[in-house]
Amino acid sequence: MTILSPKPYRLTVDLGERSYPIIIGSELLAQGEALRTAIAGRQVLVVTNTTVAPLYLHRLLQQLQGYTVATVTLADGEQYKEWQSLNTIFDALLEHHFNRDCTLIALGGGVVGDMTGFAAASYQRGVPFIQIPTTLLAQVDSSVGGKTGINHPLGKNMIGAFHQPRLVVADTATLNTLDDRQLAAGLAEVVKYGLINDPDFFLWLEQNIEPLLSRSPDHLAYAIERSCRDKAAIVAADEREGGQRALLNLGHTFGHAIETGMGYGSWLHGEAVATGMVLAGRYSHHLGKMAHSDLQRLEALTARAGLPLEPPATLSAERFMALMAVDKKVEQGRIRLVLLRGIGDAYIDGAVDEGALAAWLQETLPSPA
Amino acid sequence: MTILSPKPYRLTVDLGERSYPIIIGSELLAQGEALRTAIAGRQVLVVTNTTVAPLYLHRLLQQLQGYTVATVTLADGEQYKEWQSLNTIFDALLEHHFNRDCTLIALGGGVVGDMTGFAAASYQRGVPFIQIPTTLLAQVDSSVGGKTGINHPLGKNMIGAFHQPRLVVADTATLNTLDDRQLAAGLAEVVKYGLINDPDFFLWLEQNIEPLLSRSPDHLAYAIERSCRDKAAIVAADEREGGQRALLNLGHTFGHAIETGMGYGSWLHGEAVATGMVLAGRYSHHLGKMAHSDLQRLEALTARAGLPLEPPATLSAERFMALMAVDKKVEQGRIRLVLLRGIGDAYIDGAVDEGALAAWLQETLPSPA
Repeated sequence: MTILSPKPYRLTVDLGERSYPIIIGSELLAQGEALRTAIAGRQVLVVTNTTVAPLYLHRLLQQLQGYTVATVTLADGEQYKEWQSLNTIFDALLEHHFNRDCTLIALGGGVVGDMTGFAAASYQRGVPFIQIPTTLLAQVDSSVGGKTGINHPLGKNMIGAFHQPRLVVADTATLNTLDDRQLAAGLAEVVKYGLINDPDFFLWLEQNIEPLLSRSPDHLAYAIERSCRDKAAIVAADEREGGQRALLNLGHTFGHAIETGMGYGSWLHGEAVATGMVLAGRYSHHLGKMAHSDLQRLEALTARAGLPLEPPATLSAERFMALMAVDKKVEQGRIRLVLLRGIGDAYIDGAVDEGALAAWLQETLPSPA
Repeated sequence: MTILSPKPYRLTVDLGERSYPIIIGSELLAQGEALRTAIAGRQVLVVTNTTVAPLYLHRLLQQLQGYTVATVTLADGEQYKEWQSLNTIFDALLEHHFNRDCTLIALGGGVVGDMTGFAAASYQRGVPFIQIPTTLLAQVDSSVGGKTGINHPLGKNMIGAFHQPRLVVADTATLNTLDDRQLAAGLAEVVKYGLINDPDFFLWLEQNIEPLLSRSPDHLAYAIERSCRDKAAIVAADEREGGQRALLNLGHTFGHAIETGMGYGSWLHGEAVATGMVLAGRYSHHLGKMAHSDLQRLEALTARAGLPLEPPATLSAERFMALMAVDKKVEQGRIRLVLLRGIGDAYIDGAVDEGALAAWLQETLPSPA
C-alpha cells in the first residue's frame, strides 16, 4: 500500500529558528556532507560509548578530517546516565579549550544522545549538537523533541534541558548490529505513533511487522520517517510540553512504574512502554472508551513484535499505584493518564479516578509471586 | 539633577514571553504580595546561604505562609558554586516530591542566584524561579540577563543555562548588612553601565558617590534602577550574547585574569572588574582612542568608590596574557576586548593585536615581586 523509497528521507522538524533536518537512510555514516554542513566551527567533540565506538566511531571520524576532533567514550548503560559521566564530557571540552563555536556529536543510543544533548545545552550556556542515533528507539524517539538530561538517584530524567539538535542522521545500517530485543523495544515506540493519532500507520505496521523485524532497510527507513514526522507534528504544536505533547506519554505512566519497580535495566524502556500501552488499552476498554476489537489489534501487534503484554507478576497493585504517584506526570498531585478511544485516537485523562484505577489494577494484575 | 523617588521602582526586562519585572526599593521583603503573585504553584523551595539565612530568611518565610516551603542553606562562597552544592538543591526538590509547578526562590548574592537559577533551568527541564538578590553586585548584575550556572575546576561559569526569572525583588535594606568592601565591589558594576553607554549616569555617580557609599536608600534605589535599565536595554537587544551584549564584558577580560591569577576569593569580582576597567581605559588611551581627561575621570571615580586601580604586583605580563588567552571571551582563538572611546562610549575590539597588548602590559604593569 505504500511505495518505499530507496533514497534517503529528509524531513524538517519545524520549530521556528530552532528548526532542524532529520536525514534517514542506509549507509549515511559513509556520507559526511550533511554533517559537515551542520558543524558550526572547527572544533568537534564526539561522544559515544564502549559498545558503539568499535563499530562506528572510525567511520564517523573519517568524515571529520580537517577538524579538531576529540572523543569521549562513556560506559554503556542507563546506570551511567548521571552526573559523573556528564562531567567527563565537560572535562574533555575544557581540557581541549573548546570554545562556544564547538559542536558536539552524539553517536549512540538514547543515553548517549540525552547526555550529549544536556552537555551541549549547558557548556558555556549552550553550544550546537548533532545526533547520530544508532538504536531504533533513539532514531524514532529522541531524534525529535529536544529533550536532554540525566538521571538523579531519586528519579529518572529529573535534570535536563530542552535543547534542539542542529541535525539528526538516522542510518538504518547501524541497526544491523542491534540485538533483537533492542530492535523490538524500538518498535514499541513506533507502534505508539500509530496508536496516538495515525491509524493508517498502525495498519501499515500490522501489514509490515515481519520485514521490519528482519531489518529490511527500506521498511525501517519508512517506519522511522513516519514516526519522526508524527512526533514532530505533535512537538511543533507544543514544544515545551504544556498540552498535546503529553499524548507522547501513552504507555509511559504504567511503563515507568514497571521500569522503576523492577530496577533500571531489568525491563528495557520500550518493553515497559509496550506493556504500558497494553495496560492503557485494557483500562480504556474497561472504562468503555475503546472497543474490544481495537484492544485485540493492539495486543496482537504487540505480541507479533516480540514485546511483552503482561506486567511483571512481582508488582502488586499497591506498589503500582505508589510508583505511578511519584511519576513526574503527576500534576498538582493527580495522576494523568493517556488513554485510548480506539486505534489512532489517544486522549489525555487529567482527572483519573485513583480509587477506580487501583481497584482495576487489583483485579487485572497477576497475583504477586 | 535627578529627583529621587521614595516609592519602589518597577521596571520590566523586555524579552517577549520571557519578560519579567524588577522591583526596587526599601523594606520590600516585608511586602510579599508581588512575590506571591509570581509564584506559580503551591510548592516553593528557598535557596540561601549560611550568611544570609540568619539575617533575612525568617522575614521571607513569613511572606510564604500557606505554601509548601522547603529551604536549602548552602555554604557561603564562590568555591561552593559547583556541582555538589547544586546537587543538594536537586536532592531537596526530589526528596520533597516537588513537581513542575514548583517555584525556586534565590535569597542571597550572585553565587546563590546563579546556582538557584541553574537548578531551576535544569529541574525537570525547567521550572520558574524568583531572585531576591541581597548584594549590590547581584542587584545590578545578575538581576538582568538570565545567566545562570556553576564553575568547573577548569573554568568559571563554564556550565550553565540562560534562564530568565519570573520576578526580581531588590530590597535596598538588605544592603545595610553588606560590608564596605562588598558594597564597593557592587559599585564597580554600577560605574560600568555609565562607562559603556550612559555618560549622564556616570556624571550622576561622580556627584553622588558619597551618599551611595553611606547607603542612602533613595540613592541606592536610583542607582540600581538605572543600572538594571541600562543592562536590560543591552540584553533585550541581544538575549543570547551574539553581539552588543559583549559590551557588558567591559573590564572583565583583564578582570578575570586577575581573579583567576590570584585565586578565587582573594580579589572580589567587582574589585577585579574595577581594575580591569581602569586597564581597559589606560589601554584605550594608549591606543589613542580615549582622551586623557576621560581616563582621569574614570580613575578618580574608581578611587573615590574605594576600589583598586592597580593590578596585583605578583602577576607578570606573560601570566596576564596566558590567563586572558584561556578566557572564554576568546573567540576563534583571538582575544576580544571591550575598549573605550570616552566616558559612555565603549566598543568591542574583536581584532586585538596580541603582540602590542603584551608589550603594553610589559611596560605598564608593576614589576612582579
